[in-house]
Amino acid sequence: MKQLICWAIAFALAGNFIMAQEKQVFIIDDLILGGSTYHMRQPETAFYEWWGDKLINLNTDKAEDLFSLEDINRIIAKSGFENSVIRNMLHASFPYATRPVVVFKTKKNIFFINWEKQTLENCITFSENAENTDLSTATMQLAYTDGYNLYIASSNDITQISNDGSNDIRYGESVHRNEFGINKGTFWSPSGELLAFYRMDQSMVSTYPQVNINPKGNDSRCATIIPDKYPMTGETSHKVTIGIYNTTEKTTVYLKTGDPTDRYFTNIQWSPDNKYLYVIEVNRDQNHAQLDCYDTKNGNKIATLFEETNDKYVEPMEPIRFLPWDGSKFIYISRKDGFNHLYLYDTKGREIKQLTNGKFEVIDFLGFANDSQSILFTSNELHPLQNNIYKVDLKGARTLLDNGKGWHKATVSESGSYFIDKYSSPEIANSIDLRSTNDVTNCKNLLTASEPWDEFNVPKIEVGKIKAADDKTDLYYRMVYPTDFDSSKTYPAVLYVYGGPHVHTIDASRHWGVNGWSIWMAQQGYIVLTVDNRGSEHRGLEFEQVTFRKLGVEEMKDQIKGVEFLTSHQFVDKDRIGVHGWSFGGFMTTSLMTTYPDVFKVGVAGGPVIDWRFYEIMYGERYMDTPQTNPQGYDDTSLLNKAANLNGKLLIIYGGNDMVCVPQHTQTFIEACIKEDKYPDLFIYPTAGHNMYGNERVHLHNKITQYFNDYLK
Amino acid sequence: MKQLICWAIAFALAGNFIMAQEKQVFIIDDLILGGSTYHMRQPETAFYEWWGDKLINLNTDKAEDLFSLEDINRIIAKSGFENSVIRNMLHASFPYATRPVVVFKTKKNIFFINWEKQTLENCITFSENAENTDLSTATMQLAYTDGYNLYIASSNDITQISNDGSNDIRYGESVHRNEFGINKGTFWSPSGELLAFYRMDQSMVSTYPQVNINPKGNDSRCATIIPDKYPMTGETSHKVTIGIYNTTEKTTVYLKTGDPTDRYFTNIQWSPDNKYLYVIEVNRDQNHAQLDCYDTKNGNKIATLFEETNDKYVEPMEPIRFLPWDGSKFIYISRKDGFNHLYLYDTKGREIKQLTNGKFEVIDFLGFANDSQSILFTSNELHPLQNNIYKVDLKGARTLLDNGKGWHKATVSESGSYFIDKYSSPEIANSIDLRSTNDVTNCKNLLTASEPWDEFNVPKIEVGKIKAADDKTDLYYRMVYPTDFDSSKTYPAVLYVYGGPHVHTIDASRHWGVNGWSIWMAQQGYIVLTVDNRGSEHRGLEFEQVTFRKLGVEEMKDQIKGVEFLTSHQFVDKDRIGVHGWSFGGFMTTSLMTTYPDVFKVGVAGGPVIDWRFYEIMYGERYMDTPQTNPQGYDDTSLLNKAANLNGKLLIIYGGNDMVCVPQHTQTFIEACIKEDKYPDLFIYPTAGHNMYGNERVHLHNKITQYFNDYLK
Repeated sequence: MKQLICWAIAFALAGNFIMAQEKQVFIIDDLILGGSTYHMRQPETAFYEWWGDKLINLNTDKAEDLFSLEDINRIIAKSGFENSVIRNMLHASFPYATRPVVVFKTKKNIFFINWEKQTLENCITFSENAENTDLSTATMQLAYTDGYNLYIASSNDITQISNDGSNDIRYGESVHRNEFGINKGTFWSPSGELLAFYRMDQSMVSTYPQVNINPKGNDSRCATIIPDKYPMTGETSHKVTIGIYNTTEKTTVYLKTGDPTDRYFTNIQWSPDNKYLYVIEVNRDQNHAQLDCYDTKNGNKIATLFEETNDKYVEPMEPIRFLPWDGSKFIYISRKDGFNHLYLYDTKGREIKQLTNGKFEVIDFLGFANDSQSILFTSNELHPLQNNIYKVDLKGARTLLDNGKGWHKATVSESGSYFIDKYSSPEIANSIDLRSTNDVTNCKNLLTASEPWDEFNVPKIEVGKIKAADDKTDLYYRMVYPTDFDSSKTYPAVLYVYGGPHVHTIDASRHWGVNGWSIWMAQQGYIVLTVDNRGSEHRGLEFEQVTFRKLGVEEMKDQIKGVEFLTSHQFVDKDRIGVHGWSFGGFMTTSLMTTYPDVFKVGVAGGPVIDWRFYEIMYGERYMDTPQTNPQGYDDTSLLNKAANLNGKLLIIYGGNDMVCVPQHTQTFIEACIKEDKYPDLFIYPTAGHNMYGNERVHLHNKITQYFNDYLK
Repeated sequence: MKQLICWAIAFALAGNFIMAQEKQVFIIDDLILGGSTYHMRQPETAFYEWWGDKLINLNTDKAEDLFSLEDINRIIAKSGFENSVIRNMLHASFPYATRPVVVFKTKKNIFFINWEKQTLENCITFSENAENTDLSTATMQLAYTDGYNLYIASSNDITQISNDGSNDIRYGESVHRNEFGINKGTFWSPSGELLAFYRMDQSMVSTYPQVNINPKGNDSRCATIIPDKYPMTGETSHKVTIGIYNTTEKTTVYLKTGDPTDRYFTNIQWSPDNKYLYVIEVNRDQNHAQLDCYDTKNGNKIATLFEETNDKYVEPMEPIRFLPWDGSKFIYISRKDGFNHLYLYDTKGREIKQLTNGKFEVIDFLGFANDSQSILFTSNELHPLQNNIYKVDLKGARTLLDNGKGWHKATVSESGSYFIDKYSSPEIANSIDLRSTNDVTNCKNLLTASEPWDEFNVPKIEVGKIKAADDKTDLYYRMVYPTDFDSSKTYPAVLYVYGGPHVHTIDASRHWGVNGWSIWMAQQGYIVLTVDNRGSEHRGLEFEQVTFRKLGVEEMKDQIKGVEFLTSHQFVDKDRIGVHGWSFGGFMTTSLMTTYPDVFKVGVAGGPVIDWRFYEIMYGERYMDTPQTNPQGYDDTSLLNKAANLNGKLLIIYGGNDMVCVPQHTQTFIEACIKEDKYPDLFIYPTAGHNMYGNERVHLHNKITQYFNDYLK
C-alpha cells in the first residue's frame, strides 16, 4: 500500500507542472451524479468487511487467502443453483466471528457457504418480489415483505405472518415516514427466535392521487392512479402498532399500547435476553418522549423508564444500546442538554452518567470496544465542520482515535478492537486506514486515493465564517470562485441553498463538501456561495430550534447575511444575484425570491414546499406545530400569500410523482402567481419522484444552468 | 336607425383626421377575450327575439310597447316569487306566436307571463343544480339533469325519470363526446308529450385520473381525484341507448337497437306526428351511416330509409328536417357528392332531389320559409371566405337574400317570412338588418356599428391565396404586418396555426377574422401569418380528407408553403420564424418544430395532441382509424417518436385538468425529450381545462408573447 501513496504523491507533483491553461475543462457529466463520466472523476475507493476481528479485502475475486469467487460459484452450482451466479465479492458478509462461513444474498436466495468444508451449509429461498429483507443470522431466517404482507423464510419453508396487508394496512415496513431515525419495519431478537414488526393502519389517512402516465400491463394505455397515503399537517394521522412473532410457537402478540391514535412508536430495541422490547414513544405534539419497556411474552407494558420534554420539540433518533458486557446498562443519545450527547442509563431508568458533554455534537454511534469497555462514536468536537472518531469510557474519559482532520466514517470489528477509518479532507481525496481502538499509533493505511480533479482546472473554493442575522452566531460559508477568477472583473453570483434541519452542506471533507453543480457554475463564470444557516444540523439545539413555528424566516435572514458578504466584494455584481435550492432549498429559494424581491434577480427552486399545510405530519408538525395551533406561523411562511411579491425570474421544477413534496405545492403556487399576474416558469420531470437520477439528473442540471445563463449571465 | 348610420360615418371620417402617431396603442386587455377592456374594443351590437313574425327589441327595459321589466317583476313578485328578480330583457323568449306570453328562465324557475292579462300563467320550479335544461313549450314541462339522473318538472310536480345515474351511467346528457353534431341529450316530441333521451353506459371505459388541487368541503386539504371517463382510440368505447319517456303514461321505452357496442346513435329527430324517432346510426369505423326510423310506442325499428358510405369516413352533422307544409318529406344534409349540400327525401327513403350543388358548401341550416315553400340556409357559394344567406325552393331555384358580402348569421321568424341578418365584413364592424325572405329589397337596418379600433394604430391585414403543397389547391392566407411596418426593415415572423378539421381561421368577417393575439404580436414587431391548410373546413370533402390516416402530414406541408411565401418577402427574417397554435394547432406546432427543425426557431404549443393513441375514439378514429388498423399512421404522426429532432425553443402549455387533450400527451412528450437530452419548456395552468378564460387567458397570452420576445425577437 505504501507504493500507492508514493504514486499518489508523484502524481500530485506532476500535476503542478501542468499549467492552468493546459488543464482539462469539466463536462457536466464529470460533475453530476448520473453523468457518464461522474465516477471517473471520483477518488478511488476500496471495500472491506469484518470477519470477527479479521479484515477481509473484497476488492478482488479472492477473499484474502480464504476463498475465491470461483470457489463460491462452484459450490452454489453443485448444490443445484446453477442459475445463481455471484458476480463479485462486494456483497459478501461474515456474520459468524468464529466460523468459516460467508453469506451471499441474491434476488431470491441467501447462501451460507462454509469455505473450509467447501459446502453450502444453508440456503434460504424467498420471493423475487421480496422487499424490506431482514436476516437473522442467529437462526438463519429471513423476514421480508411481499406486496403488503410480512413473511419469514427459512431453509425449510416460508411462513406468512400477516394476511390482511393492503395499501391501507402495511406490515413490516418502515413507519412514521422515516422520521425519528426509523428506516425499517422488522427487528429480530438477538436469539433470532422472535421478530418484532411494525403494523401501520393508514386507512384513515387522506390519499394523494399521484398519476402514472406509463401504465404497464393494463388493458388501457390511459393514465392510472397511484393512491399514495399522505397525512398532511393537522389532519388525521395513521395508527401504528408493534407485533412480535414467535417463530417457534408461530404466534403473534401485539404490544398493549392502548389506542395508537396520534402516537409515534420509535427506536425499537431488544433487551439482550430477548425478553423485553424497548420503545421510545413520542406524542403527536412531539414535545414529550418516554422510554417504555414491554414484555414480549404478552405485550404488557412493564415500565416507563424515563421521560424527556422540551417546550419546542424532542426528537429521539437512536435506539438505546445495551453494553455488551453488562446487560443492565445502556447508552441513550439525546440533545437534552442542548447538544447531542451520550448518556449511560440502567434498566431502572436511572441516568448514571453523562458520558460526553460540551458545545459539540455526537454524530454517529459506532459501537462498543469490549476490551476497553468504551463506546465508539464520531463527533465534531475538534471543529464544527469535522467529524472525528472517538472512544469514551464509562468514566467519561474521551480519546481521539483518528488523525484529527477531515470527515471520518468508521466500521468497527466484532469485538471493537479494530475499525476501518475512511475519511477525506480538503487535502485528502479518500483515505482508508485500519486502526486499533486500543492504540492510536497502530494504523495501517489501506488506500490513499489520488485527486482525480488534479487534471482539471478546478475553481478556488474558500470556506470561512460570517455572523448570523443575530450578530453573534458563527455561520460557515463556502464560496466557489469562477474558474480563472480575475478580481478586476465583476461576476454574477448564485446562492446555493438547502437550509433545513438535519442537513449541512459545508464540511471538512474533500473539496469542503462542494457539490458538482457549484463547480460547473464556477466554470460558467459564476460565483457560488453556500451558507449553512441557523436551523441546519450539528450545531446544537438552540441553533436548530430558532426556526420553531416559523420555518424559513430566520433561515432567510441568515442567507441575506450571506448575500451581504457576497456583495461586500467588489468583484460581485449585486444586480446579478441568483438563488437555487432543492426540497427545503426549493422552499428557501421561493421564499427568498418572494420575500427579498429586490435582492434576487433569478431563482431556480426544485421540489419546493410552498405551504407547510401540504407537508406531512411527522416532519411538518415537529417544526411548525399544526395549522390549528399555529395558524399565524403557517400563514406567514406560506408562499401562496407571497406570490404577489414575485418580481424576478423564478423557475420551479418538480418530479411529476413527487411523494415527498407533492405536486400540489407547486401547482397551487403557480395558480396563485397567475391570479396575481406574475410569471414564474415551470418544468416537470413527469415520471420522477422527489429527486432525479441518472441521465435525468444531468438533464436537470443543464436545465437549471441554462436558466441562469438565459436570465442572469 | 338612420341616425346611427350617420353617426358611424361621421365618426369614421373623424378617424381619418387622427394621424397615425396620434392613434392609441393597444394594451393586451384590449385584444384578448377576458381582458378588462376587451368588450370596449368590440363593435356595438343589439339583441332581438321573434314573437311569431314580429320582431321584439330586447335592448331596453321595455319590450317594444308590450311590457316593461318593471311589469314583469311586479307580476312575478305578486305571484309569490319576490326573490326572483329579472335583471334584464335579454333572456326573454316568445314561444307562442299567437299568444301574448313571454317566458323568463331563472336559476330555479321558468315563468310564463301573460303581459296582456298581467298574470303569471304558469311557473315551473326545479332544482338549483339542474343542468341540461330543455323546455317543452307545448306542454310547459322542463327536462333536466341533476347529478347524473334525468328529471321532468312541470308546474305541478317533479318526476325522476332515471334512478341509477352515476359517473358510469349518464342520462339526458350529450353523448359521443359531442361529435356528429350532438350537443344535447334530451329531445321533446313536437306535442311535448314524449321525451327522447340519451342513456350512456361508460362503466367499461378507462378512467383518466384528473387531479383536483383545490378540494372544497372535504375533511382533508389533500388533492382529490376527478375520475374522467376517457375512451382512447382503439380501446373500449361507451354504450349509448335511447329512451323515450311518456309523460302521460309515465313509462319509458328504449329503442330496440340491439347490442349498442361500437355504434353511434346520432342526429335524433321526431316525426311531426310524434309517432316516430329518426336516428342516424354510424358504425365504429365511421365509414357507414344509415337513417333509421323507430316506432316510439314500442321501440321497434320500422325501417332503414337509406345508407351512406365512404371509403374514408362519413360524418352526418345534421338531423333530418321535415317540411313544415308536408310531413312526408324532409331535408337531409350531406357531403356525399364531395360538398355539403341539401337533399330532399321522402319518408320512404327516396331521394327526390339534390336541392343545392356546386363546389361550395352549405354552412348553416336556418329554417323554412312557409309562404315560398323554400329552405333557408347559408353557404360560401359567393366566395370560399364568405357566408351568405339563401333560400332554395323545392325545384332547386336559389335566391341570395343578403347583400352578398362578408360573413352572415341569421335568425328566422316563425313563418320564415322574415329574418334578422347579422353580419360583419372587413369594411363593416357589425351590422344588423331586418329582412324579408320574399323581397330582397325589403331591408331595414337596425344597427351599423362603428369600428372601435379606428382610434387605434391597427396593423395592415392582408388576405390572399397561395398554392397548397399539391401545387394545385388554393389556400387562403392572412398576413398581419407589424404595426408601423417599414418595408426596408427585416422582421421576425410567427405562424399562427390551427390546421385541424371543422375549423377555419380566415374569413371575410370583421378584420378577416383576425385573432387579437396576432394584432398584439404585430404591435410587438412581428409578422403573423395564418394559412388555412388542406384539412380545414368549408372547402369540400377532398380538401378535408387528404389528411386521412395521417393527421398533420399534409397539413404541415401546406404550412411550409406558407413559410415559403413568408420568406419570399425580403422584409421577413428567415432565421427568425416562430410558430404558435392551440389544441390541433398545438399538435401542428409541436409537429412542425420536430419535423422541420431547420425552419422554426421558436414554438409555443398549447394543449397539444402528442400521440393520437391518447385522443378520444370518436374524433380520433374518424381521421386516424385505430392504432390496431393503422399502426404506421399512428407511429408516423406520434411526436413521441420525434422528440430527438427538437432543436429550437419549444414551450408547451396546457391546462392541468385538460379533459380534451389529457395531460398525458404533453407529459409523455416531455419525458421523451428528457430521454433524448432535449430541452423543451413547459407551463401549466393548474386548474384550467383545455382552454383558459378570463384573466388566465390574458396571462396566457402574455406568457406566449414573452417566450417569443425572449427567444425570437
